[in-house]
Amino acid sequence: MAAKKPKRVTARVPRGFVDRDASDLRAQDGMLAKIRRVYETYGFEPVETPVFEYTDALGKFLPDSDRPNEGVFSIEDDDEQWMSLRYDLTAPLARYVAENYETLPKPYRSYRAGYVFRNEKPGPGRFRQFMQFDADIVGAPNVSADAEMAMMMADTMEALGIPRGQYVIRVNNRKVLDGVLEAIGLGGEENAGRRLTVLRAIDKLDKFGVEGVRLLLGEGRKDESGDFTPGAGLGEDELKQVLHVIEARHAGKMRVFAYSGAEKSAGDGGPPPNEAEINRNTAGFLSAILMSSTDGRDGALELLQLAQTFEDAGYADGRIQIDPSVVRGLEYYTGPVFEAELLFDVTNEKGEVVRFGSVGGGGRYDGLVSRFMSQPVPATGFSIGVSRLMTALKNLGRLETSERTGPVVVTVMDRDRMADYQAMATTLRNALNDDPAAPPVPVEVFQGNPKQFGKQLQYADRRNAPCVIIQGGDEKAAGKVQVKDLALGKEMSAQITDNAEWREARAGQEMVDYDPANPEAMIAAVRDILARPSGRA
Amino acid sequence: MAAKKPKRVTARVPRGFVDRDASDLRAQDGMLAKIRRVYETYGFEPVETPVFEYTDALGKFLPDSDRPNEGVFSIEDDDEQWMSLRYDLTAPLARYVAENYETLPKPYRSYRAGYVFRNEKPGPGRFRQFMQFDADIVGAPNVSADAEMAMMMADTMEALGIPRGQYVIRVNNRKVLDGVLEAIGLGGEENAGRRLTVLRAIDKLDKFGVEGVRLLLGEGRKDESGDFTPGAGLGEDELKQVLHVIEARHAGKMRVFAYSGAEKSAGDGGPPPNEAEINRNTAGFLSAILMSSTDGRDGALELLQLAQTFEDAGYADGRIQIDPSVVRGLEYYTGPVFEAELLFDVTNEKGEVVRFGSVGGGGRYDGLVSRFMSQPVPATGFSIGVSRLMTALKNLGRLETSERTGPVVVTVMDRDRMADYQAMATTLRNALNDDPAAPPVPVEVFQGNPKQFGKQLQYADRRNAPCVIIQGGDEKAAGKVQVKDLALGKEMSAQITDNAEWREARAGQEMVDYDPANPEAMIAAVRDILARPSGRA
Repeated sequence: MAAKKPKRVTARVPRGFVDRDASDLRAQDGMLAKIRRVYETYGFEPVETPVFEYTDALGKFLPDSDRPNEGVFSIEDDDEQWMSLRYDLTAPLARYVAENYETLPKPYRSYRAGYVFRNEKPGPGRFRQFMQFDADIVGAPNVSADAEMAMMMADTMEALGIPRGQYVIRVNNRKVLDGVLEAIGLGGEENAGRRLTVLRAIDKLDKFGVEGVRLLLGEGRKDESGDFTPGAGLGEDELKQVLHVIEARHAGKMRVFAYSGAEKSAGDGGPPPNEAEINRNTAGFLSAILMSSTDGRDGALELLQLAQTFEDAGYADGRIQIDPSVVRGLEYYTGPVFEAELLFDVTNEKGEVVRFGSVGGGGRYDGLVSRFMSQPVPATGFSIGVSRLMTALKNLGRLETSERTGPVVVTVMDRDRMADYQAMATTLRNALNDDPAAPPVPVEVFQGNPKQFGKQLQYADRRNAPCVIIQGGDEKAAGKVQVKDLALGKEMSAQITDNAEWREARAGQEMVDYDPANPEAMIAAVRDILARPSGRA
Repeated sequence: MAAKKPKRVTARVPRGFVDRDASDLRAQDGMLAKIRRVYETYGFEPVETPVFEYTDALGKFLPDSDRPNEGVFSIEDDDEQWMSLRYDLTAPLARYVAENYETLPKPYRSYRAGYVFRNEKPGPGRFRQFMQFDADIVGAPNVSADAEMAMMMADTMEALGIPRGQYVIRVNNRKVLDGVLEAIGLGGEENAGRRLTVLRAIDKLDKFGVEGVRLLLGEGRKDESGDFTPGAGLGEDELKQVLHVIEARHAGKMRVFAYSGAEKSAGDGGPPPNEAEINRNTAGFLSAILMSSTDGRDGALELLQLAQTFEDAGYADGRIQIDPSVVRGLEYYTGPVFEAELLFDVTNEKGEVVRFGSVGGGGRYDGLVSRFMSQPVPATGFSIGVSRLMTALKNLGRLETSERTGPVVVTVMDRDRMADYQAMATTLRNALNDDPAAPPVPVEVFQGNPKQFGKQLQYADRRNAPCVIIQGGDEKAAGKVQVKDLALGKEMSAQITDNAEWREARAGQEMVDYDPANPEAMIAAVRDILARPSGRA
């Protein structure tokens, strides 16, 4: 034990990673349980894959080709195979399904919450380890499965207590975007780069508005600071076609308004816009303008089917909206895509008031499992960003963050009698936790240095303890313990000014009979305090 | 979408890693909840650290110097700092406490379950990612905290339903082993290697018995296959001293038996051995034979204190045993160490019948936090190997692995009416899950290819569905649905031999009224089936 002292190391959490404390974890547990319940009522079952996958199994679908700096953490194994930490939960699921295809029920409904990793430069609110919560149906070829995923996302928002009108599930179809790109001559392998530039421009609609997107599709855009982003260089005609598509929802809305006069009267207490009709009109309008493209027409028809399903199932009241401006970054989507957006405003780290925005999304990825298979395996699913959603719920006051009642603390007056104090704690712990269905009631002996009694009370206070147990020599001799109600004690001591009076009152303290064979009075006194509505929040 | 087909990739989980299915995860959740409850009743709070730590923060305390092949997964960050995946949950906790020392309550009681990683050769039952569940008290200088940890381990075993007599918490003190090593002249930096050989030999007591250990402490040992393990080369005197220490419990026991005659009479229904007395005698015997060493004497006295606490708190009935042959591999322990052992026999992968053995352990590590600090920070804690414990509970039949009731499946007779079927599912889902405190009742629409109706029924069966809903054109026209009880259907069809009779019976099927505005009869029919004691296990 007399080894020489090693050089001191600085304790620091690695860059871009965070530690999480009890209230954070408990709030998250509560939130995940609500989400899990929704997924389970839809027949989804948990599955878990390891954090590592072989790099070739993850494939070229890097998290976001829009941000090439976002890489993965990779390691070469001793058999010279490269492994990477998963950057999402979809690629590992695809590998899992392919590997276990024969034994899984088909369709296979599964959910999983887990950490994913991005080897990127950490920034404000950008972490290198964060949690996603995914649900997927593999082996579901029809658009009805996509509809179900979108509706389940809406149910999830409801289950979390996000008020209607504060969230929307926006639904688009990749085939619609592919269709318009094909129509303006950007089909084929050779135009992959320009297609990406166009999609990126569309993705900025929320941020820069139609005029901003018009610039990004055309010559380019200069921002307030003077920075110039080069555009996609589309001609006037092509540009119009793209804008037509991404503004199709607006057009659909205008047509509904024109017929019903809803927009004008809504403000005067008139009927709200018929959201189901807007959805249908949007899809209808798209099928009209995308006639020339097979992909585009198929995509628009699928959107029409989706619109119908949402209407029949009662979700077309504005909660789920067909919106052709939704892009979703990931390259592997092949059909319907959806995004869950929160509509309330928050102040971002730059002090700007912005709409909270996306907390998750997903879509159809028919090619991801079949990368491993000789047969096509259609699939659809979505992913929720757990930390972002937690931040959102915190903003809405919908996160259960209330501080729990802390432990009953058995204090130590005589350090030679630790065994006695521990026996007291054991007795209390067993008695107060006799109902396994009730929340746990923590009981502990003070295990720090017991020399200063004041420090023990400070500790109990710091832990939000409801009461402490005190037994010094006098109490021991008299067969008693003191049970001190800390909340009551605080209240009382606030009213006491005179020191002598204070000592007399022994604020909040009660002397009760106790010996190890006869602990009932002590247990009853503690139960009384726990049942009291305490002054604590 | 017409991109050329990429080369097929083989789907395989990386070597030494595993996927986990629903029943495995649910069984684990149930087990972790029980453990968590015990920890919470002792006043421990959750905390979580990221999977990465800076390599220098993990320090030289590699998982097990006994197996040098067990390494860590490390990556160099772009600022040239090395990071490693944590190999246990103790080193990250030490870093966390040091980094947040000012704001944490002291003592700081925390627990955490999480994956840890070992970059070692995978083997049967040896994984590169596995879960540990730890609890620690930091800032607790006294042996009473170690006593508490050992008692909490025993409570955990009880909470998991492991019968008394099937588990034991064995307690030793590193100072006792250090003491005897000092006494035989193996103190000091220069003898570190030989000390390790001696400790390794002691660690084999369970496996090879006293005679095997004697050989390993002396000249060396040849096993059945002829392989020779070189010994520590101790002389006869030194060897005796070491054996004296590790057999101290046996000596303590013999003394109790000699006085009480318990051993002889136990088989005849006489009084069981007085376990509290055995603990005390063992510690007393140790303090006598380690008189010459300060460390040894201190260690023995601490064991005596522990024995007293276990007795007073009612744990010295054989559940917690003082046993100086416990080594615990990790180098950072500085005081009491404990090991939770399961005593029942299992057949290992070689077909040998062996005692199940350790499912966790821990001890005092006073140096680990203070590596980062200018002040001493005493700490004690333990770690449970979650997968091993799950295996043990499975062997004991104490793991909740019963298959859940599957989803109510709404089948698809007409694929153009998906929206109708989804509306049915939504109606049922909402009605059957109206009590948020009840377990979720899954309801789903069949989302596979609906062409062959038989496949849909096979799917429902595979998912352990209690019933399916069927509505073809005839039922639709009549304003009806069929509700088919799958368990009842199976029972009935087993009794039916005639084909015509079969069609007549439509085994387990019931026709009920249904239209979207009036779904009560369908809901009631499903509720009836769910309430029925089904034929399924």
